[in-house]
Amino acid sequence: MTKGEVLLLDCWASPYCLRVKIALNEKGIEYEQREEDLFGGKSELLLRSNPLHQKVPVLLHHGKPLSESAIIVDYIDRTWPSPPLLPSSAYDIAQARFWGDFIDQKVFDAGKNIWTSRGEALEVAKTDFIEILKQLEELALADKEYFGGDIFGYVDILAIALTSWFYAYEKFGGFKVEDHCPKLSAWIKRCNKRDTIARVIPDPERIYEFVGMLRKMHGIE
Amino acid sequence: MTKGEVLLLDCWASPYCLRVKIALNEKGIEYEQREEDLFGGKSELLLRSNPLHQKVPVLLHHGKPLSESAIIVDYIDRTWPSPPLLPSSAYDIAQARFWGDFIDQKVFDAGKNIWTSRGEALEVAKTDFIEILKQLEELALADKEYFGGDIFGYVDILAIALTSWFYAYEKFGGFKVEDHCPKLSAWIKRCNKRDTIARVIPDPERIYEFVGMLRKMHGIE
Repeated sequence: MTKGEVLLLDCWASPYCLRVKIALNEKGIEYEQREEDLFGGKSELLLRSNPLHQKVPVLLHHGKPLSESAIIVDYIDRTWPSPPLLPSSAYDIAQARFWGDFIDQKVFDAGKNIWTSRGEALEVAKTDFIEILKQLEELALADKEYFGGDIFGYVDILAIALTSWFYAYEKFGGFKVEDHCPKLSAWIKRCNKRDTIARVIPDPERIYEFVGMLRKMHGIE
Repeated sequence: MTKGEVLLLDCWASPYCLRVKIALNEKGIEYEQREEDLFGGKSELLLRSNPLHQKVPVLLHHGKPLSESAIIVDYIDRTWPSPPLLPSSAYDIAQARFWGDFIDQKVFDAGKNIWTSRGEALEVAKTDFIEILKQLEELALADKEYFGGDIFGYVDILAIALTSWFYAYEKFGGFKVEDHCPKLSAWIKRCNKRDTIARVIPDPERIYEFVGMLRKMHGIE
């Protein structure tokens, strides 16, 4: 793999960009990374590569742009098949995509409701967030090592990237995920020991500061 | 294919169920269909098969449940590969899934904004809806016969099913899609001539009456 063939338009704090970095690391693919200034001005390359959403992550492979993180992870798995991230049977793939969709529809928005709320609304937001994590824990993870079974894969990547903001949710919400979801918490610790994750996951304190800045921008602090 | 191996928990008016029916027809798969009473009481089988969302469509294949229409269409394509609905290259698959996601995020909700609005809000809703269709027309369909090129496929199925509600949007909104999106309108007519669609797409007048009933339930009429 020649460096430069794979270019990621990135934002260090984005859990969606983090998914792409973890997937590339799992496959052992070298890539070039370009930090986008989402508040200052987005690059011409980003605007041209993702004209509809104008969002990171964008992955350029031999200059051809891909966007939407779950779709990029799927593309990475098809393009570099070893080790596989998605299961092999059509039914198991559909199950993995179902949980990927559930995570995409629920987790980040529920987290945002925590750090944008105060008082009674915050209590509702915390209850909703924990309920979503419990559904994931009970119905998808259960007693398995990883979401797909014994092997770290697609759903793990989609979910673990979003947990990089959990410390900020906990600090602003005044709660601990561990007190409500012990199995999910053990899974987070297990994943974070993987070198493919540890070397790209941002420092929780830095995310906490970043979310604090977003709160100021939203007029919450 | 023995009848009974494939069972669809269906609702006649649902564009999402329609996707599954069109995909099965394209593959020449016989299936059994069970109408769910979404207002009266959902069946035990639906609640057990899709406990998280409790929504149709659910496809049971040899008794194993699948939900979320785009995921079901993908499953159908993997399980019965001929004729293919998704393209063959990883990049083209990613593009098809990108447009599938765009359609899922935008079209039905924008349509709902039309039939749930009046006055100035209705004007905004119509403008938004037409803008979304124009993006689809210009960036995804362009001058091609179908979204994927010469062959009817995945994005066509996801999109054409949603057009089954367009007549109701037009009547309640007082506009014509054809006046704004001539290429998309020609594509709709082209698709609706296919036997795989014509024999399952609901009568537009019946959908119009159904949406009228929903408007009464929402207190709009």
